[in-house]
Amino acid sequence: MVAQNPIGVFDSGVGGLTTLRKLAQLLPHENLIYLGDTARVPYGNKSPEIIRSYALQCTRFLLGKKAKLIVVACNTVSAVALPYIEEASHVPVIGMIKPGAQAAAQNLREGRIGVIGTQATVQSKSYESEIHRLLGQKNVAVHTVACPLFVPLAEEGWHDHPVTYLIAREYLKPLFDAQIESLILGCTHYPLLEKVIRDTLPGVRLIDSGAESAFSAQRILQEQEIALIQSGSRTIECYVTDLTLTFSKLAHKLLEIPLTAVHQVSVDG
Amino acid sequence: MVAQNPIGVFDSGVGGLTTLRKLAQLLPHENLIYLGDTARVPYGNKSPEIIRSYALQCTRFLLGKKAKLIVVACNTVSAVALPYIEEASHVPVIGMIKPGAQAAAQNLREGRIGVIGTQATVQSKSYESEIHRLLGQKNVAVHTVACPLFVPLAEEGWHDHPVTYLIAREYLKPLFDAQIESLILGCTHYPLLEKVIRDTLPGVRLIDSGAESAFSAQRILQEQEIALIQSGSRTIECYVTDLTLTFSKLAHKLLEIPLTAVHQVSVDG
Repeated sequence: MVAQNPIGVFDSGVGGLTTLRKLAQLLPHENLIYLGDTARVPYGNKSPEIIRSYALQCTRFLLGKKAKLIVVACNTVSAVALPYIEEASHVPVIGMIKPGAQAAAQNLREGRIGVIGTQATVQSKSYESEIHRLLGQKNVAVHTVACPLFVPLAEEGWHDHPVTYLIAREYLKPLFDAQIESLILGCTHYPLLEKVIRDTLPGVRLIDSGAESAFSAQRILQEQEIALIQSGSRTIECYVTDLTLTFSKLAHKLLEIPLTAVHQVSVDG
Repeated sequence: MVAQNPIGVFDSGVGGLTTLRKLAQLLPHENLIYLGDTARVPYGNKSPEIIRSYALQCTRFLLGKKAKLIVVACNTVSAVALPYIEEASHVPVIGMIKPGAQAAAQNLREGRIGVIGTQATVQSKSYESEIHRLLGQKNVAVHTVACPLFVPLAEEGWHDHPVTYLIAREYLKPLFDAQIESLILGCTHYPLLEKVIRDTLPGVRLIDSGAESAFSAQRILQEQEIALIQSGSRTIECYVTDLTLTFSKLAHKLLEIPLTAVHQVSVDG
């Protein structure tokens, strides 16, 4: 019966929908539940303590919906709260950091990786730790940059606006100068700015941490024999803590597939 | 004894500190308490319902601290929640909309006013309603524009960055074309971008809604005979719901005067 249960996915807002989309494409029979904590978005410039407490509330909500697997579709939460979520959960938990780091560490020639993310993600040094664990500290240089304006730009819909190019050139200059080979898009909003980032860093391999985590989810479902191989009609349900204009505006665009239902809920009780 | 009690000021984050600064300068003997709801900032792109519930929690916190007057140092809250706050408060409440609208409505030649604010403030149409009530609908044209990227730019510290000029030119173009005479800075973050806004709209009279509300506060304290005329050493206490890096970085810069103390509190209990 577990196979019928949904995969639970959460993020602070709309960014995680890019991960939900990958999961929906990769796992066409699985039921999916998404929770966006839009009443408290963004998490990226808040303190680790507050992020942990919000993340645990989101986790409990998804477990209450009988999630068989939890995907933390938010790099900020993955960077500062993953062990806390794993401790609170009796089902497998997939974060963004390990899958992203593994993909970036493959096929390097010179050993130069770039990471972009929120303030909180960059300060946690989670990506550096994971990459150094994989490759050894001596064999790789990791360059990280916080890009605080990328999330509001993505939410404003300025996905290839001249301003976005100008900001990208400023933020990404140290990574350009460092001649990085692969770049981890360490925030689930960033795939929305992919074109600008690609044009600003030509020849660099871009790693979508959300897409990589979707592959991890697929593997774990198979290993644990809880994958749903076929179904009549799967459901994709969406819960938000605030039904904001931004969510309504971006959800359809980001997801490209119809949601079965959108509900507003409170998770801080 | 009431005169000794503090003036309570709240905002979603750091923006309201520009109003606190005006209050501190104008009322040098008054004790001040500031609450920044940094755990849930920003409010500007959330729904009216959520903003109201957060605003009431902030109000109750300040009343618990024996505030003799409440200044809602947030245009978004003032625009969508003021009547709810007034109903919940037994002390006078000052919002941003009326003082800002009154100042903008003075000394007009052609009757053309501009308003910039968050998504929520613009959608509420609060400034239009108030200006039309003051001047009559026929005698004035009110042009409003939402500037969602101004808050993150102010928080990023890009107060006169080339990117900020470029974004200001795009957002403010309709106001430039409409040849407005006065412009209400309808968000307490915007005084931080004053130079850029002034350069983009030369000759336009800028109205700092926070400064105007500080004058209102002064008048009400005098009228109700609860002003503190002299004191040994007044205190300025600051409470935040999350001690974030942005707050630490900007508080000193915005305030220009030392805080007596900064505490972290929870208001959503």
